[in-house]
Amino acid sequence: MEKFRFLTSGESHGKCLTAIIEGVPSGVDIDIDFINAELKRRQEGYGRGDRMKIEDDKIEILSGVRHGKSIGSPIALMVKNNDFQNWQKVMSVFPEDYTDEKSFTTYRPGHADYAGSVKYNQTDLRNILERSSARKTAIEVAVGAVAKLILKTLGVEGSSTVTQIGSACCPDRFHQEIDTAKENGDSIGGKFVVVYKNLPVGLGSHVHWDRGIDGRIAQAVMSIPAIKVVEIGTNPLGMCGSQYHDEFKVENGEVCRVTNNAGGIEGGMTNGEDLVVSAVMKPIPTMLKPLNSIDNKTNEQSQAHYERSDACAVESCAVVAESRVAWVLVNEILLKYGGDSIEELKKHI
Amino acid sequence: MEKFRFLTSGESHGKCLTAIIEGVPSGVDIDIDFINAELKRRQEGYGRGDRMKIEDDKIEILSGVRHGKSIGSPIALMVKNNDFQNWQKVMSVFPEDYTDEKSFTTYRPGHADYAGSVKYNQTDLRNILERSSARKTAIEVAVGAVAKLILKTLGVEGSSTVTQIGSACCPDRFHQEIDTAKENGDSIGGKFVVVYKNLPVGLGSHVHWDRGIDGRIAQAVMSIPAIKVVEIGTNPLGMCGSQYHDEFKVENGEVCRVTNNAGGIEGGMTNGEDLVVSAVMKPIPTMLKPLNSIDNKTNEQSQAHYERSDACAVESCAVVAESRVAWVLVNEILLKYGGDSIEELKKHI
Amino acid sequence: MEKFRFLTSGESHGKCLTAIIEGVPSGVDIDIDFINAELKRRQEGYGRGDRMKIEDDKIEILSGVRHGKSIGSPIALMVKNNDFQNWQKVMSVFPEDYTDEKSFTTYRPGHADYAGSVKYNQTDLRNILERSSARKTAIEVAVGAVAKLILKTLGVEGSSTVTQIGSACCPDRFHQEIDTAKENGDSIGGKFVVVYKNLPVGLGSHVHWDRGIDGRIAQAVMSIPAIKVVEIGTNPLGMCGSQYHDEFKVENGEVCRVTNNAGGIEGGMTNGEDLVVSAVMKPIPTMLKPLNSIDNKTNEQSQAHYERSDACAVESCAVVAESRVAWVLVNEILLKYGGDSIEELKKHI
Amino acid sequence: MEKFRFLTSGESHGKCLTAIIEGVPSGVDIDIDFINAELKRRQEGYGRGDRMKIEDDKIEILSGVRHGKSIGSPIALMVKNNDFQNWQKVMSVFPEDYTDEKSFTTYRPGHADYAGSVKYNQTDLRNILERSSARKTAIEVAVGAVAKLILKTLGVEGSSTVTQIGSACCPDRFHQEIDTAKENGDSIGGKFVVVYKNLPVGLGSHVHWDRGIDGRIAQAVMSIPAIKVVEIGTNPLGMCGSQYHDEFKVENGEVCRVTNNAGGIEGGMTNGEDLVVSAVMKPIPTMLKPLNSIDNKTNEQSQAHYERSDACAVESCAVVAESRVAWVLVNEILLKYGGDSIEELKKHI
Repeated sequence: MEKFRFLTSGESHGKCLTAIIEGVPSGVDIDIDFINAELKRRQEGYGRGDRMKIEDDKIEILSGVRHGKSIGSPIALMVKNNDFQNWQKVMSVFPEDYTDEKSFTTYRPGHADYAGSVKYNQTDLRNILERSSARKTAIEVAVGAVAKLILKTLGVEGSSTVTQIGSACCPDRFHQEIDTAKENGDSIGGKFVVVYKNLPVGLGSHVHWDRGIDGRIAQAVMSIPAIKVVEIGTNPLGMCGSQYHDEFKVENGEVCRVTNNAGGIEGGMTNGEDLVVSAVMKPIPTMLKPLNSIDNKTNEQSQAHYERSDACAVESCAVVAESRVAWVLVNEILLKYGGDSIEELKKHI
Repeated sequence: MEKFRFLTSGESHGKCLTAIIEGVPSGVDIDIDFINAELKRRQEGYGRGDRMKIEDDKIEILSGVRHGKSIGSPIALMVKNNDFQNWQKVMSVFPEDYTDEKSFTTYRPGHADYAGSVKYNQTDLRNILERSSARKTAIEVAVGAVAKLILKTLGVEGSSTVTQIGSACCPDRFHQEIDTAKENGDSIGGKFVVVYKNLPVGLGSHVHWDRGIDGRIAQAVMSIPAIKVVEIGTNPLGMCGSQYHDEFKVENGEVCRVTNNAGGIEGGMTNGEDLVVSAVMKPIPTMLKPLNSIDNKTNEQSQAHYERSDACAVESCAVVAESRVAWVLVNEILLKYGGDSIEELKKHI
Repeated sequence: MEKFRFLTSGESHGKCLTAIIEGVPSGVDIDIDFINAELKRRQEGYGRGDRMKIEDDKIEILSGVRHGKSIGSPIALMVKNNDFQNWQKVMSVFPEDYTDEKSFTTYRPGHADYAGSVKYNQTDLRNILERSSARKTAIEVAVGAVAKLILKTLGVEGSSTVTQIGSACCPDRFHQEIDTAKENGDSIGGKFVVVYKNLPVGLGSHVHWDRGIDGRIAQAVMSIPAIKVVEIGTNPLGMCGSQYHDEFKVENGEVCRVTNNAGGIEGGMTNGEDLVVSAVMKPIPTMLKPLNSIDNKTNEQSQAHYERSDACAVESCAVVAESRVAWVLVNEILLKYGGDSIEELKKHI
Repeated sequence: MEKFRFLTSGESHGKCLTAIIEGVPSGVDIDIDFINAELKRRQEGYGRGDRMKIEDDKIEILSGVRHGKSIGSPIALMVKNNDFQNWQKVMSVFPEDYTDEKSFTTYRPGHADYAGSVKYNQTDLRNILERSSARKTAIEVAVGAVAKLILKTLGVEGSSTVTQIGSACCPDRFHQEIDTAKENGDSIGGKFVVVYKNLPVGLGSHVHWDRGIDGRIAQAVMSIPAIKVVEIGTNPLGMCGSQYHDEFKVENGEVCRVTNNAGGIEGGMTNGEDLVVSAVMKPIPTMLKPLNSIDNKTNEQSQAHYERSDACAVESCAVVAESRVAWVLVNEILLKYGGDSIEELKKHI
């Protein structure tokens, strides 16, 4: 059983998003302002549409924290949907509120619509898209913020940077790429890098494939909606062994490396160097410029529905990835060092 | 609990590699020749060193199969090490056989040596490298072969192809790249693609991050020793939404796609198109040309030990990835369709 | 990974109890009245104290259900604490609301207080008892009610009966036992039986210890606060083999049994007979008549704190057990038959 | 993911039983004589049949141990079947060895035969009974022995005692009960108690139902073939609260208890007192005196097949239970304290 485990729930236009985290050691300062600041980071970024203004997400802690500190109990988090009054009937839990207003039946390419409707036997695609929406990453970032609060206590800090937007690798051309996409009614993806510093040596393991921290990070990042490529460290393609591998040296009596092409992971374990994880996000699939599709009632040609208008969400996605890597790191730290309270954990590390 | 779960064991120069697989439905034809053929595929490939000749791996089934068919019990697999007589004392389980012959203390860059020795509190790096060796992928391929036998019954077939070696993207230049690396006492990596055809729609799910089949595949592939990049479908970097997304069409009454940039996965689920997963393997870290390192006894500069001589193992690694994707697919199929016997499973699908 | 998995949260006097259930097939009628009726059943029973009147629990569904039906997304449930306004400061999440009002430091025998305070490094025992309270079983019963709604669809029905209170095995003496305990400022436990009818043959498995449904049921029932004994079927103590084992017969062309001493489980699997699980609940540890204890600040003799006044909660506990067995059964059914929608699941069974 | 996890395999008359344990810290002395002594303890006990003489089980360690110490790698264990030469064709993995010699089709009451054959779609019941046999507990005891070696290092010791055979609660009448059963061609069960001393406070948790150590122990013990009742501590049936609960006292400056009715567990956690777990084993279902049954080919009345002749196996079962509790304890200790090497673990505790 994982040590830091959680479940999330919530539909994009439902009443709220929630999460329950089980496994947070007692005694962690649960700084609500920090969690809200992380939620804010996720909502920002050039290229986001108008919904971000409605969403101004705020966290509510329902349990597991008393007088500012975790007590070992599961922590329940909630982010309310500020726009819910406009969706009450459409998203109601009660059968008597049934309406087919806002239902729709044209599969959007690049979304869960088609596979989800087949899997869950749904005709109204809203029953799929409401959960597959990237909106759910808001509560995931809140979970990540709690993980980061644990990491902070241990001196571990993370950050993320966008490194490419569309075909631009130079930051001062990013806005232009996004503007062009927007003008064309199109969307654009990009690449970002997440870095965590000051990690202990030996998180993960080489002894069994599913203990490898590289695999766990890859799972956490690849399963973010819209991510299609995950890289750890420098992409080695085209390099030979003598160029790629990170030679050792001793500096101030400490074993360290000349380079960090491995991105801080060798043999499925952290090696003490910075953890470096990059990912490529595909262009957002919902565009003003419609795509050819099929209507699931008539099985006839149709045009994919337009619901959102972000032209680019790479910055936001980087924050989600940073959060998810935090989940993995905290779980690995708790598995390696144990500790039911943060005081005990600190003693073990 | 996973439906198709297993553990593997074994050191590179130990007596044998073993695996126990729990969750194979009853009634599957366990074709030993097929498993051996998969083991053979893993051992082949231009650029492999001499050990492959010694290793000629053969599977032995110890339990879980009776008269050619699985019976629902855990299946135990063993691959004996043909060279064990030369390692009996060095790798002995018994304390009285202790020898420091073949022990070594210089961390090899790119390997688990450093992180593993810190984590597991070992001075003799052999206690780490014996398990971190890619040798363990032999038994993983055997497990994958069992998974493939289940997939075959359901009409699902996989394959893999090397698409780049070093800087060569053209197959007729692959051998040359490898030869050059070898001549230089260097090593070279590359890229490959794994394809699975004829998968049902709706493996994985969009409803929770850890149900996404993209994440599970990424974990299984990224945790292969030496893999640093995993891609699903076409790398979308630089493409805009209208270029990348796979429009729908109806063909012979079936919903399908004009393109398959998504690599068969949307919303964390298979969408009925071919599953396409690529990965980049780093150059093998053990080279004739030594790398700078540290001796863990003296903490002084040393040169990394040379144990293996493969110049390139990308073909072999592709077979391992193909096997691992098979694990994930079988598990997802069993989770989705249930079925304790292959007959029942077939009825459900 | 389990198919029907969930997490719960909430402190006894906190704002609310919550649960998130992941894995409910789509298309299940989520009957809120039924869930509330189950919550009501838990609160009833002769011998409960006054708090039950305050608690009149009502479920709120926050997500995962649309227009009366599950949609495959995680289902979030909430039971608000009607008395929270009186505990706002004491149970506040915010550090600025700190108060040591209602804190206490004397370990109550029979409770989590001592072990919990050591484990989680807490001086104020309220940080332990708020979560260890049986109050959390309210939301567990709600989760069980969702499980039962799935079981109902498949024709599986459960019930529970109290079979002993104190030393009385005859129902018409139960109230008298409870009254006597109450008059003495004491508490009394008892025994109950949970029965599920109409289960398919072959839930669980004999092939690996952790697949046995007997073990899974035992875990679910033994981990209910205050349960110390779990029995499956007839207690075989003192019986010989020829008396105990359930001989086969054919009736109306169906294989069935002459007796059901095994309680519906053989070889870790359901065998088609009624599932029969009994459990013994210890007397509630909080009594008017105080117990000798220790104060954790002074390490001196003290008397255990009195917070609740139920003299007997066996009826309530039986409802909790019935709910928990429902969790296990649904999970096993989903593992065995798969099915992402209730329509598909019904076809598989 | 559990920290101490393993899989076992093997059929009763197959080539061998095997296990792979993943999660053993490095540096543990793996004392083969101790493991063999535990295997011997399982085989002894008055009332066992002749097969025990054939079985004289010996462990073989295939991997994960070097020069007497665990190295962090998965540990593979094997117990060969000394009688396999007589079963080679009957139990062969190869289709060409097919024989229906030793196949049988009459369900034995009290066994997995019926449910297993329905579940796994098998006509020859040997395909079920070979795995459902108690023979598989031999390798489970070996796994338990490894767990005990870890516990020993930490000063934790376990033992077990038979407390009732048939209707005899007095040890000097046990043999007589067994002899009588044997003479009648019948079988007899009994009760035993497992005790572990010197456990740390706070294994398990009250914060979530599936973290409770009581539930985990109940699962591990109830899933032993033939166990139908599990009790923790004193059976509280008929006791009132003031009699049952364990009052606190201070002795030599240490918090301890006047009594230990709770059996060392309160609130789902160890409380520092001795862990006391009892269980009732049903009479062995295979008896000389046959039971009424059904033939699965003809659906007609038949008499249950006789394969084994133990009249009583309670002593042996107690050893299995002791082993299984050791699994749970080690896993909980590793989850609570972490530690990849035994040296680090000791420092944490």
